[in-house]
Amino acid sequence: MATGYSFLHRHILGIEQLSREDISHILTTADSFKEISARPIKKVPTLRGHTIINLFFEPSTRTRLSFEVAAKRMSADTFNISPSTSSTTKGETLADTARNISAMHPDIIIIRHACSGAPLLLSRHVRAAVINAGDGAHEHPSQGLLDMMTVKERRGTLSGLKIAIIGDITHSRVARSDIVGFTRMGSEVHLYGPRTLIPQGIEHLGAKVCTSLEEAVRGADVVMALRIQRERQNDPLLPSLREYSRQFGISRQVLSLAKADALVMHPGPVNRGVELNPDVADGPQSVILDQVTNGVAVRMALLYLVMGNS
Amino acid sequence: MATGYSFLHRHILGIEQLSREDISHILTTADSFKEISARPIKKVPTLRGHTIINLFFEPSTRTRLSFEVAAKRMSADTFNISPSTSSTTKGETLADTARNISAMHPDIIIIRHACSGAPLLLSRHVRAAVINAGDGAHEHPSQGLLDMMTVKERRGTLSGLKIAIIGDITHSRVARSDIVGFTRMGSEVHLYGPRTLIPQGIEHLGAKVCTSLEEAVRGADVVMALRIQRERQNDPLLPSLREYSRQFGISRQVLSLAKADALVMHPGPVNRGVELNPDVADGPQSVILDQVTNGVAVRMALLYLVMGNS
Amino acid sequence: MATGYSFLHRHILGIEQLSREDISHILTTADSFKEISARPIKKVPTLRGHTIINLFFEPSTRTRLSFEVAAKRMSADTFNISPSTSSTTKGETLADTARNISAMHPDIIIIRHACSGAPLLLSRHVRAAVINAGDGAHEHPSQGLLDMMTVKERRGTLSGLKIAIIGDITHSRVARSDIVGFTRMGSEVHLYGPRTLIPQGIEHLGAKVCTSLEEAVRGADVVMALRIQRERQNDPLLPSLREYSRQFGISRQVLSLAKADALVMHPGPVNRGVELNPDVADGPQSVILDQVTNGVAVRMALLYLVMGNS
Repeated sequence: MATGYSFLHRHILGIEQLSREDISHILTTADSFKEISARPIKKVPTLRGHTIINLFFEPSTRTRLSFEVAAKRMSADTFNISPSTSSTTKGETLADTARNISAMHPDIIIIRHACSGAPLLLSRHVRAAVINAGDGAHEHPSQGLLDMMTVKERRGTLSGLKIAIIGDITHSRVARSDIVGFTRMGSEVHLYGPRTLIPQGIEHLGAKVCTSLEEAVRGADVVMALRIQRERQNDPLLPSLREYSRQFGISRQVLSLAKADALVMHPGPVNRGVELNPDVADGPQSVILDQVTNGVAVRMALLYLVMGNS
Repeated sequence: MATGYSFLHRHILGIEQLSREDISHILTTADSFKEISARPIKKVPTLRGHTIINLFFEPSTRTRLSFEVAAKRMSADTFNISPSTSSTTKGETLADTARNISAMHPDIIIIRHACSGAPLLLSRHVRAAVINAGDGAHEHPSQGLLDMMTVKERRGTLSGLKIAIIGDITHSRVARSDIVGFTRMGSEVHLYGPRTLIPQGIEHLGAKVCTSLEEAVRGADVVMALRIQRERQNDPLLPSLREYSRQFGISRQVLSLAKADALVMHPGPVNRGVELNPDVADGPQSVILDQVTNGVAVRMALLYLVMGNS
Repeated sequence: MATGYSFLHRHILGIEQLSREDISHILTTADSFKEISARPIKKVPTLRGHTIINLFFEPSTRTRLSFEVAAKRMSADTFNISPSTSSTTKGETLADTARNISAMHPDIIIIRHACSGAPLLLSRHVRAAVINAGDGAHEHPSQGLLDMMTVKERRGTLSGLKIAIIGDITHSRVARSDIVGFTRMGSEVHLYGPRTLIPQGIEHLGAKVCTSLEEAVRGADVVMALRIQRERQNDPLLPSLREYSRQFGISRQVLSLAKADALVMHPGPVNRGVELNPDVADGPQSVILDQVTNGVAVRMALLYLVMGNS
C-alpha cells in the first residue's frame, strides 16, 4: 500500500523487531482495512483457502475472538485449539506440537502462551507465519499496535506525545509492547504503579518511572490504566483492591491533571472502580471501545502482511 | 414473503413481544427455509459476510448447534463463545462484555444465560440484533416457535387446539414461551405437574392449571412433556424419578385419553421411562425429531428476519 | 478415480470392513488430494454446502484438527461437539444424541468415543455417513489408512513387507487397524511389547507375536512404536517409564537390526526417550510427520468417498 517500502517480516513476535517504518506501514494498512468491518457484507476474498490456526494455551475470549473475526473477514479458514483439548496434556512438548501442526500445512499460527518466548520457539519449528497473541510477561504486539492505531487516529501523530501507563508493569506484556512501540514512534512513556510491580531496569526500554501518580499523569496525552489481576489478589506484593483504587485508580480528579483532551485507554477487561472510576471508563475521553474495534483492523493487517502481501 | 406485512423486531427476546401476525410470519418464513436443509447443497448466500456470535453462558449442545447450523446454511460467519473461555470469569460485567463484542461489529448475537433478562440487558448495549436462546426461567422463544411450527405442520392450524403441558412448569422457560405462544394463536394450554412446581399466578399467562393428569390430557391435540432436571434430584420439592414417572409420566394408557391422533412432544433431551415411556417417546404419535428439524428452519427464519429481510 | 471399481461403503467403521480393492482405492484417492494442501489456496469446492459434524466424546487435538482441516479444504461446513458441552451429561443416550443430530440433516458425522462399537451404534440411528475417528480399543481406521499411505509412498508397495509394531497392543486401536490393514494388503505384522499388554489370540488377526525385540525388528521394513499412555502409569501391568524405555524403546542400536532404510513410525504424540530415542524420532528414517501430512489427505479422501463420489 505504501510505496517504496517492503514489509519483510515472516513472523510477528514482538514490537521490538519492528522498525518505525514497519509500524507506520502496519497502521496504514490497518486503516485501509477498518472500513470492511463497517460494511453490510464484512468480507473480502483476500485470504480465501488459507489455513489459520488459533493455538491458545491460555484462555482468552477477546483476543481469540478478535483474531478469528479478522481471519474470517479475510475469508480464511480458521481453527481453534485450546489448552484443555490439547495433547500437551499428554506430555507433548511445544516443539512437537509445532511440528505436528506444521505438517498439516497451515499458513498462519496465532499463539498465546503463558511462557515468554513460546512464539519464538514455535517459529523455529514451523513453515507457517507465527503471530504472537501474548506470551507470558513478554509482548502482546497486536495489542501494542492497536493502541498506537487508536492514539494516532485521535491525535494524528505518534510523535512528541506523553503516554502515562499506570499499574502492574511487571506482569504486563501489554505495557512492554506499548513502551517499546510508543517510544520508537517518538513519544515519551511515563510509568507509575505499586513500587513492587515496577520492574528494575525498565528504563532501558526507554520509559521513565515516576514517583507519583500526579507526575505520571500531568500533561499527558494518553492515560492508560492496566488491568489488576484479581487472580493475584493474595499476592502480598499487591495492595488490596480498595487500597489500589485509592492510590492508583484514575478518577475524574486525577484525569484533570492530564491534557484537557487526553485519551483514556485500558486493554480490558476493566475492573470498574478499581483501575478506572466508572465515570472515567465510560466518559467522553475514553477510547476503550475504539481499541477493540481497531484490534480487528490491526489483526486483519497483520494477517495480510505476513502472507507477503503489501 | 407475506405481503402487506412488515416485520419490525430488531431483537427476539421472547414470544411475549410477538403479535399473532409476527408469529404467523415467522412460521411462514421458516416453512420456506425448511427445504434448504433437505438439499444436497444445504446453503444459500443470504447472510454471506455477516458476523453471528453464539454467546452461551450456559452449556448447550442442541440449541447452540441448531443456531450454528442455521447460520452456516445462510452462509454467515459464526463464532462460539462459551462461559469457560469467557472473560466474565475475570470479573467483567455482562454490559462490558456486550459493549466489547459490539465493538467488533457483529450483526447478530445469540445469547443463552442463566439469568432472566440477560438478553434484554444485552440488547441495550449493542448495535447487533439480539436473539434469546434461553434466559433463566423466563423465555426460550425459538423453542416456542419451533413447537408451534411442528403443531401447525401436523394440524394445519394453531387455533382451537388443546395443548397439555406436563411437568416442572416453574423452572421451564420452554413452558413459558409455549404458554404465551399457543394461547396467543388461539389455543388453550392446560398445565399439570407436581403441585410445588406449578407457579402461583401462571393463569395470568392464559393457561389453565389442572388438578389431575387425566384432566390435562383428556381430549388434547398435543401432549407435551417437559424435561425433569436430574441435576435437581436432591430438591425436596421434587418427587423421586420413580415417583415422578408413576404420577406424571406419559404412558400409552395416559396418551389414550388424548385425541386418537394427538401429537407427543418434548423439548429434549428425554429421560426415557421418566417423562415419557419409551413406547410413547418413539411411538407413531411422537413428533420429537420433527421439533429438532424445525428448529433449524425457525432459526434460519429468525436470523433472516432480524437482519431486516422480509 | 480408479476405473471399473465402485466404492460402496456408506460408513467407515473399521479397516476390517474394507477389501484390498477398497484400501487401494482410498489410497489412490488420497494421493490425488494430497497436493491440494500444498497449494497457496488450499481449497476445492467439492463438498460445499455439506454439513460435517465432529462428535468427539474423548478429547483429541490432532485427529479432530486433521478431520476439520480436511473438511474445510473440501469447502464443507464443520461443527465441533465435544463431551464437556454435550447433553450426554444430562443423561441422554448415544442413540438419542444420534437421532437428534440426525434431525438437523448432517451429511457426515465423525465420531470418537471411549467405547468400542459406538460408531456402529451411531450408524444405525442416523441417515448421515459415519466415520470412526477411534472407538475404545477397537479401531481407528483413518490412522490405519494414513499409516498404509505413508508406507506405500516410500516403499512403492504394501505387499511382502515386514511391519514391526512395538508396545501396548492391548489398549491400542491403532495397532488393531494397522494389523488388519497391513496383513490384508499382503504384508506381515510382527508384534512385541510387555507380555501383559499383548492380548491373547491376537494371532487370529494375522499378526505374529515375537518373543524378543530383536526378533520383531530384525529385517523389518517398518518399525512402528506405539504410544505408552502415561495416564496408565499406575497400572501394575505396566513397567515404569525407565524400565519401558530400556526393554521396549527404539534406540539407534535397535533400529540397526531392521533394514538399512527401514521407516520409523509412531501415531503421536511421542514420549521422547520412552518409546523412541530422540535421535530415532527425529532421525533420517523417521516418517512421523509424513504420517500427519498424509492424515489430512486420507481424511479428504474418506469424506469424498462416503459422499458417493468416485
